[in-house]
Amino acid sequence: MNQKLEFTSTCPVKTQHSEKILLGHGSGGKLTSQLIENVFLPSFGTSSDILHDGAFLKIGNSELAFTTDSYVVQPLFFPGGNIGDLAINGTVNDLAMCGARPLYLSCGFIIEEGFPVEDLIHITQSMKTSVESVGVQLVTGDTKVVEKGKGDGLYINTSGIGMIEKERISPLSIQPGDVVIVNGDIGCHGTAIMSVRENLEFESTIQSDTQELYSLVHSLLQENIPIHCLRDPTRGGLATALVEIAEARKVGIEIDEDKIPINPVVKGACEFLGLDPLYVACEGRMIAFVEQSYAARTIEIMQSFGNEPRVIGVVNEQHPSLVTAKTFIGTKRILDRLTGDQLPRIC
Amino acid sequence: MNQKLEFTSTCPVKTQHSEKILLGHGSGGKLTSQLIENVFLPSFGTSSDILHDGAFLKIGNSELAFTTDSYVVQPLFFPGGNIGDLAINGTVNDLAMCGARPLYLSCGFIIEEGFPVEDLIHITQSMKTSVESVGVQLVTGDTKVVEKGKGDGLYINTSGIGMIEKERISPLSIQPGDVVIVNGDIGCHGTAIMSVRENLEFESTIQSDTQELYSLVHSLLQENIPIHCLRDPTRGGLATALVEIAEARKVGIEIDEDKIPINPVVKGACEFLGLDPLYVACEGRMIAFVEQSYAARTIEIMQSFGNEPRVIGVVNEQHPSLVTAKTFIGTKRILDRLTGDQLPRIC
Repeated sequence: MNQKLEFTSTCPVKTQHSEKILLGHGSGGKLTSQLIENVFLPSFGTSSDILHDGAFLKIGNSELAFTTDSYVVQPLFFPGGNIGDLAINGTVNDLAMCGARPLYLSCGFIIEEGFPVEDLIHITQSMKTSVESVGVQLVTGDTKVVEKGKGDGLYINTSGIGMIEKERISPLSIQPGDVVIVNGDIGCHGTAIMSVRENLEFESTIQSDTQELYSLVHSLLQENIPIHCLRDPTRGGLATALVEIAEARKVGIEIDEDKIPINPVVKGACEFLGLDPLYVACEGRMIAFVEQSYAARTIEIMQSFGNEPRVIGVVNEQHPSLVTAKTFIGTKRILDRLTGDQLPRIC
Repeated sequence: MNQKLEFTSTCPVKTQHSEKILLGHGSGGKLTSQLIENVFLPSFGTSSDILHDGAFLKIGNSELAFTTDSYVVQPLFFPGGNIGDLAINGTVNDLAMCGARPLYLSCGFIIEEGFPVEDLIHITQSMKTSVESVGVQLVTGDTKVVEKGKGDGLYINTSGIGMIEKERISPLSIQPGDVVIVNGDIGCHGTAIMSVRENLEFESTIQSDTQELYSLVHSLLQENIPIHCLRDPTRGGLATALVEIAEARKVGIEIDEDKIPINPVVKGACEFLGLDPLYVACEGRMIAFVEQSYAARTIEIMQSFGNEPRVIGVVNEQHPSLVTAKTFIGTKRILDRLTGDQLPRIC
């Protein structure tokens, strides 16, 4: 419970006063946004694109999305996946969240000297499987090797180009009255990683939810669901993603904690680890903002992908830029971005 | 001299027999190609694109180039540049070598915990300057932080999308009789890095040659120079680049060592360090394969960019896939790819 309160408190460390990079600067939460605002935006301009995971580009007669992510997950192999399929699914999903069909990927490896070639083969074969399952092409790559002790086995960067299938899927398209839907239970990926890292065993093994989301997005678009915004809640979890969206669109979002699907084993693990599941990363889940009248059809389509989708909230005009959560005991709390480094290196 | 002989010997370490990744697997030379052939190609398919730094894509009505590179240079700051401008120029140059106008870049940072924010600001400001000077846009990014001791200050990945200005600039377009031209003196970048790393002082400071090459390529294309192939000799240097091209096109390339421009200070430093300048990386130099009748005009245009361009060789049919060098003493040697890890982490 203390942990939960901590998440909603204001972070006292401002990037401009911190002379050193902290682990939390890579958490995807408050320190990451401060780093972007104070260091990257002054150098790279004020384009709003840089505040999102993907950029929208117009090249010739094509509307494209372009995105990049480096993967530094530790351990490299975890229940349900490894850094290889994570690196493909993660970038495919960033494109899908832009409403884009993933076309081409690049891949850059930074390998630590002494890394087993057998593990590298295992990882690249997982990447091949993931690439083929979504129909994207891996077309260009790069390999660097660093001395022993200057890396951590393997880091992978994937960048991706996608073709926009539906324009204006963005926080700016959200309307008051839209419902907030998640396509399944949250928190599996982060909890799976933490369980392995802490060498914990629960009544059943927690599997990462890493999977590609393009097929689901494509189905929703094929069925003409009026999707206003999509987001995959990775680093920083569901809560941070919602806060980013509410602030970008200057609307309020009210969610009902009771309705958020969480696997009981994950819930137990989070309690044990002192984590708030709302801040735990997913790698195969998405939040969709949809017109209320399409909620039932959206849920049906999501169900056909074999998950546990739920309407968890609604967009309002009353509390601009605020995300409020009705708690299990009936009170309300204001959700803030993730502060500090609750879960370093989960992706 | 021993060092030189070593470069032309066959490397005894085959990737399939090496159970661990070696520093040389990231050298851009023979071990790197073995890694690509034995690990990456079996997973990622036999597309010839993966053998080059950039892929050619057709999207809508546009012909595009797409490329990625991770930068792990050490030290991060060196005479003439830093990892930031290197990461921009390097990816811009890979696009330019495809005959493409650089349009959009992505940027992924992997930062080691404890890295000084001041250095990060310095580096991002260099990136801004480089981005602006070439007119490319940095549109999307990502930041990860790893624990102290799991990185080496900062690694940067940049990926880039460019619009093809002239099609079929590729090793496959080379014709026997083409001349081989370099736009300036070679080996500055690698020697500058090694001098700083080894804490050596020469009669004058050796500056990295890091610079963007798009402006020069654009001028050559504007003047309708029939360029058949372009390559920037980075990791593995001039010799490795020529060998890769000769093998890809199955032609012979004969160069005259006497004609290769090398700054005397760089030459002296290479002798001192036991390096063959033909294998030392450049970051602002390119090799152009051009019809012989256009050699003089090409040299003139290159001179207007303030360098020391020279015709260094010619393409022949006599020795398919072989690069031969006429040495200073009149003998000939066969050049092979760089073996081992002569210069780890120079980019």
